[in-house]
Amino acid sequence: MRALRLVVEYDGTHFHGWQFQSDQRTVEGCLRAGLARLSRDAVATAGASRTDTGVHARGQCVLAHLDCELPVERIHRALNSLVPEDLGVRECREADPDFHPRRRAIEKRYLYRITTGSRSPVFGRDYIWWVRGELDVERMHDAAQVFVGEHDFAAFRNRSKDEPESTVRRIRVADCRPTSEGSIVFQVIGDGFLYRMVRNLVGTLVEVGRGRFSREDLRAILAASDRERSGPTAPARGLYLMEVSYPDTSSCELSDSDDAMRW
Amino acid sequence: MRALRLVVEYDGTHFHGWQFQSDQRTVEGCLRAGLARLSRDAVATAGASRTDTGVHARGQCVLAHLDCELPVERIHRALNSLVPEDLGVRECREADPDFHPRRRAIEKRYLYRITTGSRSPVFGRDYIWWVRGELDVERMHDAAQVFVGEHDFAAFRNRSKDEPESTVRRIRVADCRPTSEGSIVFQVIGDGFLYRMVRNLVGTLVEVGRGRFSREDLRAILAASDRERSGPTAPARGLYLMEVSYPDTSSCELSDSDDAMRW
Repeated sequence: MRALRLVVEYDGTHFHGWQFQSDQRTVEGCLRAGLARLSRDAVATAGASRTDTGVHARGQCVLAHLDCELPVERIHRALNSLVPEDLGVRECREADPDFHPRRRAIEKRYLYRITTGSRSPVFGRDYIWWVRGELDVERMHDAAQVFVGEHDFAAFRNRSKDEPESTVRRIRVADCRPTSEGSIVFQVIGDGFLYRMVRNLVGTLVEVGRGRFSREDLRAILAASDRERSGPTAPARGLYLMEVSYPDTSSCELSDSDDAMRW
Repeated sequence: MRALRLVVEYDGTHFHGWQFQSDQRTVEGCLRAGLARLSRDAVATAGASRTDTGVHARGQCVLAHLDCELPVERIHRALNSLVPEDLGVRECREADPDFHPRRRAIEKRYLYRITTGSRSPVFGRDYIWWVRGELDVERMHDAAQVFVGEHDFAAFRNRSKDEPESTVRRIRVADCRPTSEGSIVFQVIGDGFLYRMVRNLVGTLVEVGRGRFSREDLRAILAASDRERSGPTAPARGLYLMEVSYPDTSSCELSDSDDAMRW
């Protein structure tokens, strides 16, 4: 079997998340179906992040095993013609024998887009969260610095079937700023994220932007490890998995602008 | 009956065009249904442009007659809560007795978005036309100048049920340029447009960008008034009705950047 390393992007709107499910349209399922058309034997895949229903990705990393002798360039091109239009393969190359997209990952970067105002946006509704009214972006950015460092993020995770051994994670960068288009972009870089953690961080920061929570409230919520006290889970549609870094790639860096939408 | 003048925007993807049809989901139908909730009597509407299925608008102008005594600000707010999320009312004010959105219109501006490259875009597929390969944008802009002025545009219209008396129209501005995001934007300002004319201009300019037609070919096609010789009709999804100018508004002007997508 041949091991390939892919970087894929997808519009999560019409997928039931990343992870393969035999009875649902998932990203992994559609990717495997495309790979299967190129392979003489059953294919196997693993992704860096199990994104939820409606969550988008610009840089999901994937390990794929298939039985195919075509040059990688031809596999790359063929695969893009074999997957649906809401899924794209950005990169495709041979994988080192010890590569694993989740276990070898050093950091991940997520981006979250918010728009405000009195009226919901007519265009691109599946790609941004509309929050009625105005938000204090500087206040949000300042409060987000509470998340930076190594902390127990139990207050910001939802329960899931696969409970992690530890809820301690290290966040290196948390950045909230307005864009030239008038939207708000939150970016976060860390060594790992708990179930729904980014969306819970965003939901809580929006409460800060509304003036309902202060930076000190966030510090107390984090310290108390109590999910009941943090804000609501922000909707999936504003969230993008932007990149995953590995020992052989450059490290995750903030994008200058709203580059989730550079299409 | 009260006469109101509205500026509306819509994501055309899930509408069967602007014009009311009793058995289809149309923009006018959804707008009338919202107005009807505010009116004691039957409502009437008229739009500046009968945009086709899939065509978007940022600045469609509408005259609405309804029987309602609320202040315009309250009608505006109420109406936005009564129309579906892919339709929005940007402006709402009293209309002068002699106002008519089509007959009083001086000019209209349309914008068309194109993206190129070897792979179709994963995000925003309903808002842009993907053309495989590369296009020579300067060559397209240069050739588009052939359209400027008063000409018989019979070569660039499709047949429709309502044939206009004359196929002569005056185009004041035709502009084709790359955007900072790497897409191509064509903007055209004129006193009127024939059925599918903008999409036929774009389809023909893309043939210029591919090197299949020259500026001189365009001049000859225009002069021959022969639809068989011009290019294919560009898809609806890249087209936006941006603004309509009237004696009491500022005149139509090119937007600096890709402002169809500022959301």
